[in-house]
Amino acid sequence: MTDPVSQEVRQRAAAIRLAVFDVDGVLTDGRLYLGEDNSEARAFHTRDGLGLIMLLAAGLRVAVISGKKSNALEQRMGSMGIQDVLHGRNDKLRALEELLERTGLRSQQACFTGDDILDLPPMAAVGLAVAVADAHPSVRRAAHWITGECGGRGAAREVCDLLLESQERMVSTLRALEQRIESAANAAPTATSTATSTE
Amino acid sequence: MTDPVSQEVRQRAAAIRLAVFDVDGVLTDGRLYLGEDNSEARAFHTRDGLGLIMLLAAGLRVAVISGKKSNALEQRMGSMGIQDVLHGRNDKLRALEELLERTGLRSQQACFTGDDILDLPPMAAVGLAVAVADAHPSVRRAAHWITGECGGRGAAREVCDLLLESQERMVSTLRALEQRIESAANAAPTATSTATSTE
Amino acid sequence: MTDPVSQEVRQRAAAIRLAVFDVDGVLTDGRLYLGEDNSEARAFHTRDGLGLIMLLAAGLRVAVISGKKSNALEQRMGSMGIQDVLHGRNDKLRALEELLERTGLRSQQACFTGDDILDLPPMAAVGLAVAVADAHPSVRRAAHWITGECGGRGAAREVCDLLLESQERMVSTLRALEQRIESAANAAPTATSTATSTE
Amino acid sequence: MTDPVSQEVRQRAAAIRLAVFDVDGVLTDGRLYLGEDNSEARAFHTRDGLGLIMLLAAGLRVAVISGKKSNALEQRMGSMGIQDVLHGRNDKLRALEELLERTGLRSQQACFTGDDILDLPPMAAVGLAVAVADAHPSVRRAAHWITGECGGRGAAREVCDLLLESQERMVSTLRALEQRIESAANAAPTATSTATSTE
Repeated sequence: MTDPVSQEVRQRAAAIRLAVFDVDGVLTDGRLYLGEDNSEARAFHTRDGLGLIMLLAAGLRVAVISGKKSNALEQRMGSMGIQDVLHGRNDKLRALEELLERTGLRSQQACFTGDDILDLPPMAAVGLAVAVADAHPSVRRAAHWITGECGGRGAAREVCDLLLESQERMVSTLRALEQRIESAANAAPTATSTATSTE
Repeated sequence: MTDPVSQEVRQRAAAIRLAVFDVDGVLTDGRLYLGEDNSEARAFHTRDGLGLIMLLAAGLRVAVISGKKSNALEQRMGSMGIQDVLHGRNDKLRALEELLERTGLRSQQACFTGDDILDLPPMAAVGLAVAVADAHPSVRRAAHWITGECGGRGAAREVCDLLLESQERMVSTLRALEQRIESAANAAPTATSTATSTE
Repeated sequence: MTDPVSQEVRQRAAAIRLAVFDVDGVLTDGRLYLGEDNSEARAFHTRDGLGLIMLLAAGLRVAVISGKKSNALEQRMGSMGIQDVLHGRNDKLRALEELLERTGLRSQQACFTGDDILDLPPMAAVGLAVAVADAHPSVRRAAHWITGECGGRGAAREVCDLLLESQERMVSTLRALEQRIESAANAAPTATSTATSTE
Repeated sequence: MTDPVSQEVRQRAAAIRLAVFDVDGVLTDGRLYLGEDNSEARAFHTRDGLGLIMLLAAGLRVAVISGKKSNALEQRMGSMGIQDVLHGRNDKLRALEELLERTGLRSQQACFTGDDILDLPPMAAVGLAVAVADAHPSVRRAAHWITGECGGRGAAREVCDLLLESQERMVSTLRALEQRIESAANAAPTATSTATSTE
């Protein structure tokens, strides 16, 4: 189901220092839950969340660019330590360029994962362009790699795994994560206490 | 999976100036989320939303007809610039006729996308009748075309794409959308500002 | 996908005057949405709702029996005119017997649609026992018929269609429904008014 | 679809006295519903709930270990009589060891069902390690058994059924459950009264 990872994709993935994700349709399944009381919600996936945390633990920079403004997004990303949250931004190429400027990285060091046509300009500008499995056909055609899972169901995690594996950082990242969890647990050793949530 | 688009469907699609959508089961997956506190919500899809915006950008008229009244629907459609929101209307044929009168268009210039038997009368009256993939069997039988996706999961976007492609307006619409985004971004050029959300 | 409808099932369906449905896992997909603020919600499906309304329009009696108490359930059913809402009842066989007593019907005139083992006793007692596609294996084994759709995704509607078709009431029911909608629309003839919502 | 249950898995399952479940991605489908008003929700499945109740009725001990703190989780589990709710715990192996100490059970008497890499340490330490169908590939590889269903869609129920069947307790448990329901109904015998909800 998943696009087999070609040697070319592995090489592109090995160079990535900045992983950028679209939000609706990529970190979510594209659904906006709208209540009669004007409430608005979206669903993020727990396995994607752990993937983003692993990227950070591996020293990569993680950012999200979204056409829609969202407090929930800002808060979720902030709780993981992701500060580059550019939302209310449909000019996604420009937003990407700002990120490259901020980070001093070259476009070949950036990865962009998208699902719809507004993601095409940044996808054309980066070293690794990824489409989620249920992306718009034009986005799938423009991608270097297509995930096996749909947006909001683990697609972002596949990107995280691809980057860590291509960079041979998976094992060391898992070890770093374990150590972090262990020190948090040691700092709060009683049975009823709660370690810092990583997810 | 998607019904192959026949020459006849392309011709019908080429004539459409008014795209009408049922709501529950077409723009949503049919689920009504009901809370113990009497809250009510439904989920719209982000890729459908961009499709509707593209239809508007291409100069088509977009309308929704729903049996149920919904503030959330009115607000979501209003935020996209869709004013023809006829809800609390089970007499969908009559609602369609009102739309044709308002717009001065002929029925052959209208498209209706539905999922259930109350959609059959307007579907029988328009130039292009579409059923979502998971529509009631009688609705699938009555349709000129059946989408590949289920309601609420991108079915409406397929209709939008079909109309724009059959009218050879896709490329110009994308360009118009890009320019609109660019001017919005230029009007709000600082890194932390937020452009008007199109989705 | 759907169990082919055997002659035996058609005969059983032809005799049904009371259609009883379990709720969680049958009229919903089994998910309980629990919020950190102690909110609780479940999702009903719009096409199931129209099916229940059609059963009522055809003169059948409709009831739900649920192990869990739920205001949302009571309200949703009440809005459709379904008054036999027995919830907070795990003794489902007894609840069924109460319904039979209330209605003066024989067990062969009742249909029960379930998804889990607590539904087995009433299923063993009725003329037509139906399991949703994703029911517990023991429930699927105990059913006279298995729907093609999963609970909360249209399974209940298949039961409604089966009953109406087996009783050759589909056409007359659709006509009755149309007339009701038309009179409601005539009673509220202005373009911006809203007819009584049937779904 | 379901992993065939080997003789070895049956033997492992026969010894289990403590069933431990991860939460997000196992008892839920991994989605966190985040509202713009900072609300947070997750969806539990009704058929999983009945499975956990059956384990308790059969005299097994049930526990959950979650990386995230959640009131909703605590309340849902509490309503079923599950008191071992260890949340806000990423040090899952240590949490498991606490459970073993509390219960005086050996690790071979514990089962752990997980979906992601933080579940690997406790999975490696128990007598029966289960992965949900959509678990991370590394978790699927580490499992003695993989469920046929995805997390949040009935996977936990499959684990419950496996344990009860391997221990030849299914029939007696169903009988105990029926009796409990009957006594509750007898204690509240009027037609409109509501028995204690078991699900």
